[in-house]
Amino acid sequence: MAYNNTVASLAQVTGSVDYSKGPDPSSLIQKERALAKFDMEQMNYFLEGSAEKAREVRKFVSEMERDPILAATTHDYDATKAEHREITVKKINRLSRYIEVETFDQLERRLSIVSVFDPSFHTRVGVHLGLFLGCIRGNGSTNQMQYWLLQKEAAYIKNLYGCFGMTELAHGSNVAGLETTATFDEEEDQFVVHTPHLGATKWWIGGAAHLATHCAVYARLIVKGKDYGVKTFIVPLRDADHNLMPGVAIGDIGAKMGRDGIDNGWIQFSHVKIPRYFMLQKYCKVSEEGEVTEPPLNQLLYLALLLGRVVMVKDAFRWSARVITIAIRYAVGRRQFQAALAKKGDPETQLLDYPLHQRRLIPILALTYAFSNGANVLAETSASTMDELDRAVAADNKEQLNAGVDKMKSLFIASGSLKSTCTWLTLANIDECRQACGGHGYLSYAGFGKAFNDFAVQCTWEGDNNILGMSVGKQLLKKFAAELLGDTPVLQKQDLNSPTKILYAIQTALVRACARADSVLSLKNGDTDYIGADLVTLLKLLAHFFLLKAFLDKIDATKDQKDLVPVLDLLAQLYGAANVLEAFSGTFLTYSVVLTEAMAHNSTDHIAQLCAALRPHVIPLTDSFMMSDMMINAPIGYYNGDIYKNYFNTVTANNPTTDGKAPYSAAIENMLNRKSLEERQRFEREDEAAEILSS
Amino acid sequence: MAYNNTVASLAQVTGSVDYSKGPDPSSLIQKERALAKFDMEQMNYFLEGSAEKAREVRKFVSEMERDPILAATTHDYDATKAEHREITVKKINRLSRYIEVETFDQLERRLSIVSVFDPSFHTRVGVHLGLFLGCIRGNGSTNQMQYWLLQKEAAYIKNLYGCFGMTELAHGSNVAGLETTATFDEEEDQFVVHTPHLGATKWWIGGAAHLATHCAVYARLIVKGKDYGVKTFIVPLRDADHNLMPGVAIGDIGAKMGRDGIDNGWIQFSHVKIPRYFMLQKYCKVSEEGEVTEPPLNQLLYLALLLGRVVMVKDAFRWSARVITIAIRYAVGRRQFQAALAKKGDPETQLLDYPLHQRRLIPILALTYAFSNGANVLAETSASTMDELDRAVAADNKEQLNAGVDKMKSLFIASGSLKSTCTWLTLANIDECRQACGGHGYLSYAGFGKAFNDFAVQCTWEGDNNILGMSVGKQLLKKFAAELLGDTPVLQKQDLNSPTKILYAIQTALVRACARADSVLSLKNGDTDYIGADLVTLLKLLAHFFLLKAFLDKIDATKDQKDLVPVLDLLAQLYGAANVLEAFSGTFLTYSVVLTEAMAHNSTDHIAQLCAALRPHVIPLTDSFMMSDMMINAPIGYYNGDIYKNYFNTVTANNPTTDGKAPYSAAIENMLNRKSLEERQRFEREDEAAEILSS
Repeated sequence: MAYNNTVASLAQVTGSVDYSKGPDPSSLIQKERALAKFDMEQMNYFLEGSAEKAREVRKFVSEMERDPILAATTHDYDATKAEHREITVKKINRLSRYIEVETFDQLERRLSIVSVFDPSFHTRVGVHLGLFLGCIRGNGSTNQMQYWLLQKEAAYIKNLYGCFGMTELAHGSNVAGLETTATFDEEEDQFVVHTPHLGATKWWIGGAAHLATHCAVYARLIVKGKDYGVKTFIVPLRDADHNLMPGVAIGDIGAKMGRDGIDNGWIQFSHVKIPRYFMLQKYCKVSEEGEVTEPPLNQLLYLALLLGRVVMVKDAFRWSARVITIAIRYAVGRRQFQAALAKKGDPETQLLDYPLHQRRLIPILALTYAFSNGANVLAETSASTMDELDRAVAADNKEQLNAGVDKMKSLFIASGSLKSTCTWLTLANIDECRQACGGHGYLSYAGFGKAFNDFAVQCTWEGDNNILGMSVGKQLLKKFAAELLGDTPVLQKQDLNSPTKILYAIQTALVRACARADSVLSLKNGDTDYIGADLVTLLKLLAHFFLLKAFLDKIDATKDQKDLVPVLDLLAQLYGAANVLEAFSGTFLTYSVVLTEAMAHNSTDHIAQLCAALRPHVIPLTDSFMMSDMMINAPIGYYNGDIYKNYFNTVTANNPTTDGKAPYSAAIENMLNRKSLEERQRFEREDEAAEILSS
Repeated sequence: MAYNNTVASLAQVTGSVDYSKGPDPSSLIQKERALAKFDMEQMNYFLEGSAEKAREVRKFVSEMERDPILAATTHDYDATKAEHREITVKKINRLSRYIEVETFDQLERRLSIVSVFDPSFHTRVGVHLGLFLGCIRGNGSTNQMQYWLLQKEAAYIKNLYGCFGMTELAHGSNVAGLETTATFDEEEDQFVVHTPHLGATKWWIGGAAHLATHCAVYARLIVKGKDYGVKTFIVPLRDADHNLMPGVAIGDIGAKMGRDGIDNGWIQFSHVKIPRYFMLQKYCKVSEEGEVTEPPLNQLLYLALLLGRVVMVKDAFRWSARVITIAIRYAVGRRQFQAALAKKGDPETQLLDYPLHQRRLIPILALTYAFSNGANVLAETSASTMDELDRAVAADNKEQLNAGVDKMKSLFIASGSLKSTCTWLTLANIDECRQACGGHGYLSYAGFGKAFNDFAVQCTWEGDNNILGMSVGKQLLKKFAAELLGDTPVLQKQDLNSPTKILYAIQTALVRACARADSVLSLKNGDTDYIGADLVTLLKLLAHFFLLKAFLDKIDATKDQKDLVPVLDLLAQLYGAANVLEAFSGTFLTYSVVLTEAMAHNSTDHIAQLCAALRPHVIPLTDSFMMSDMMINAPIGYYNGDIYKNYFNTVTANNPTTDGKAPYSAAIENMLNRKSLEERQRFEREDEAAEILSS
């Protein structure tokens, strides 16, 4: 079935199409690769943060792509939901053997790669390792952590498997409004966990339907009739034989838009009793007598979610890198139509030589480069803040704790604005890349469909993007509304080439938009809901400020690498011009940050020029992501660039042809070869019948 | 398993949450419905174009939702690809019985409804009825049409089933570049149809993998060594026993992002012989001696695609109506958090009472209303143009034909701009509505995931949106570049309430953007590719001009209905303010069409006010779409508004709970209860082994 280009038998035909040979996309891509003007190895270090980190990533990738159980393949696109779920458990089982012999730190970095090539697997195991164990680490005492993680070996995915029982059917993001109760029963020294009504059913719980033995339940602590708000409790769901515990009702919530490999479920508790010491009590304790010691800061309860946001910014980088690599390789290898100024007899034009196509894809490439370093900076800040908090808690030092909490609040703003903005942009990137591959982008084996479906949830979970927009926006308003940056334009036409000036323009827009929102707010009696849309805009501008600044800082730190800098500089310019100035042109013009003439030039000419300048570098720039074919998992985007053969061979291998008949072919044949309508009506409506029946 | 709200056993607890009863979304929705300020029946006539059309739609819907084979159900979300394909054939079989007893005109309108609730079914049968038969009708002689459609009964889906062999692996939209050949063999008076190389493999052909017996093949006509360009030929693929014909190789192209029910395939022809009279010869004929009579206008070849575009604008209306109904019912029934100005003790706030949520959804509602009449006007124009062309061809009247062709060119511009713009907007609407339903939007039973996946292809097929943007944009440039509308702002703050002034502002922006694009073009030696992005903007502005104008005209024609007009007027204002002015704020400001102060007011205040004014009407406005629960097919959006119970009952019915164990539970249990690492390593690394092995 493998198909080689054959010389047509109709070699000598006059006309406009040369069908003597088929297309040769591979040579187009190889040619551009050979002309790289910079060291791709060094560029990869730039993207990953350092040579060391870059090499580690590649080590994990090569290890996992050799592993027959862990590796992604194009068969993933054909698997049913039932198959996906089973395969995912096999992968978790396989991973558990790695965990036993490597450090938790290594595991974490391994998992950040799994997130790209198998998001269902990543999430399903992440629910246990990240959310469940993270909840115990974050909210349990040291002894509790030791017991569940090490003594019971949960850290090695052994004996027990946890899920994260936060959301309820009628309560998503609003954790404070959850309705499941954990009522202290003094006589028996235990808590009674209960679902009071349908709306309080635990819902969306990953791992609950099939896998989990325990659940970290978010429930209202009720002691002596008083409601202390939401705390966390470890509740066993299934016994060691995997049978449901009494009082625990669990069901499968069924098919989802994506992430088929996860067994999301619902849980209802009917007066389920757990010992008092199953409550996680780092910050809040209940004594035998029912005395409650409350936590210093409720926010600490949600640390597990905050860390998830940091990971999602890294995800935004890797997912965008994957889809833009596919779309750009395809756009370089694919020819379609002829350019307006082509000469008669020229071959069809490569897609990426059309300025419109450049403008659709090259800004996504620039954005992905901006994501890379933004994600690295955020991860470093997050790690140092967590360390500081941990040290403060260990030393029981109030002052240090308060300082740590302040840093955590800043981190909340940065991670919130980046999580929302980067996940929205990545989702858009995936679909734009799909559309840029035309019809072929719609086939599952192109990877975009599954990527979109799997990624889409990132805009919603661990802080819905719009809700984060509201809460982060309010913080920004407090911070910037008092500042005034005047009302004169700060960006002229000649400044478009300066990313530093664009950075200042973003800051100016942010401050002026804050001032405007604040003035509307004061007319509306401080109703922050009224300016919700403005708050979301503030959040986005902040994220772009953060990303562009991190990008420029990193370029500055790399300035010795003479071959990298010019192309990085072009990327930063394009990122500023297209993804910020053009994307927020209404805002920049409304607040007179940019002159209309500069904006007109930016839209109709400047961006096109930057794209054209970057056009020769696109293959080396995407190669620099160093995504192996396993990570790409889309034959139209494989490294060798032999688009059509890779594609055709995948399609035929995954859909072996038999005799061209479907399993249900009898139904087709019976339909097409059916009797006449008259015969099927038993001739009851024919003249003869009419005569008899009328008489 | 059905769950009724139960009074919690913990009725008397102090604290911030009242768990004595569950949520009651149904009463919230019913209350708003009861307060409707206009006649929903009359509003439905407005949307459907007339009372007669509205009633017909409802007749078809009720007929099909009673039909156990044709009706959509939530089980569709759980079906595998293999099941989808088989079910779809059963539906086609069922439909064939309707066709035998109703008119083609009725069939067409029936199918336009099928398109919303079962897009796979619609496309799979549409390939035969619309594309294949449409191609014969459009390009075959009267006798050819009679023979295939009526004598062979293809029109009744009998004896033969056709597919549409246009796209090739290396050629999508560029029909003129197709490489399949049909070479005339004078000696045998036949054509030899051949695939010269892999790139010319017919690709994406709906119905080819399993169903089709014949294919309308687009191939280069080659006679006596001369290439006459692409013509159409009927090529049999399978015999009456459904076995593949000699020389025909067919395979399944496998999994797609959506539309699982369609058996898309690839076809390779190896010197397949067909009689000369299998060429469709309305416009182009080859005589026995190899004389070629060429068509008057090649564009007529693509009429079948043009009609598809008209249908897609209607689709945009119905799909948007469906998803916005779901999202709005959910947003009215769902409570989450408390509004900023809520008083302590107030219940959680209904989602749609948040201005941000209003701003996300109510403009989509306004846009959907704008789609409705735009689609109706386009369909009427299209029908009259086609009639005119048919009459001209029948009468063999050159003058009439030319006039018809001119109208067709206008139709090409209108339908192209609307197809692109409306499909892009609808795709965005689907995902925005999904996100607005939070986590629940991600569950398949909410309907959005499948809707997005099924709809996404509409941005690509029958004219890729960006390619249409280029070609339509060029026509607009020719038309408007010479016009000059000055450079003074035409929209002040006080004009924002006037949709007529907004209409004029769109026209002004369109003309000024044309002038700008034209000036860039002249600097670039007429390289229209360079201004590709600008051309796409022109296309979008034209579409909005068309939609707003059609909307205002229809409101004007409805002005006697005093209860409808005020709310329709608000919708038109909001559509103009949010979907046009705000969405294109960069363009309106760049070309100084709108003053910055007016734009600032629009963004930070005016749109919010319009949304607030429309807020009380949203339930009646979505009810007016009169989408039955079968059409909605998403329990969180059913008419009765009992969100949580509908949802829970669907989830449990579709995923019956057994004992909480997965079919693959043994794999889970074996993993969790595995032996210790030391034991699994056969103690080979213990001290005892070390001693032995070291000595």
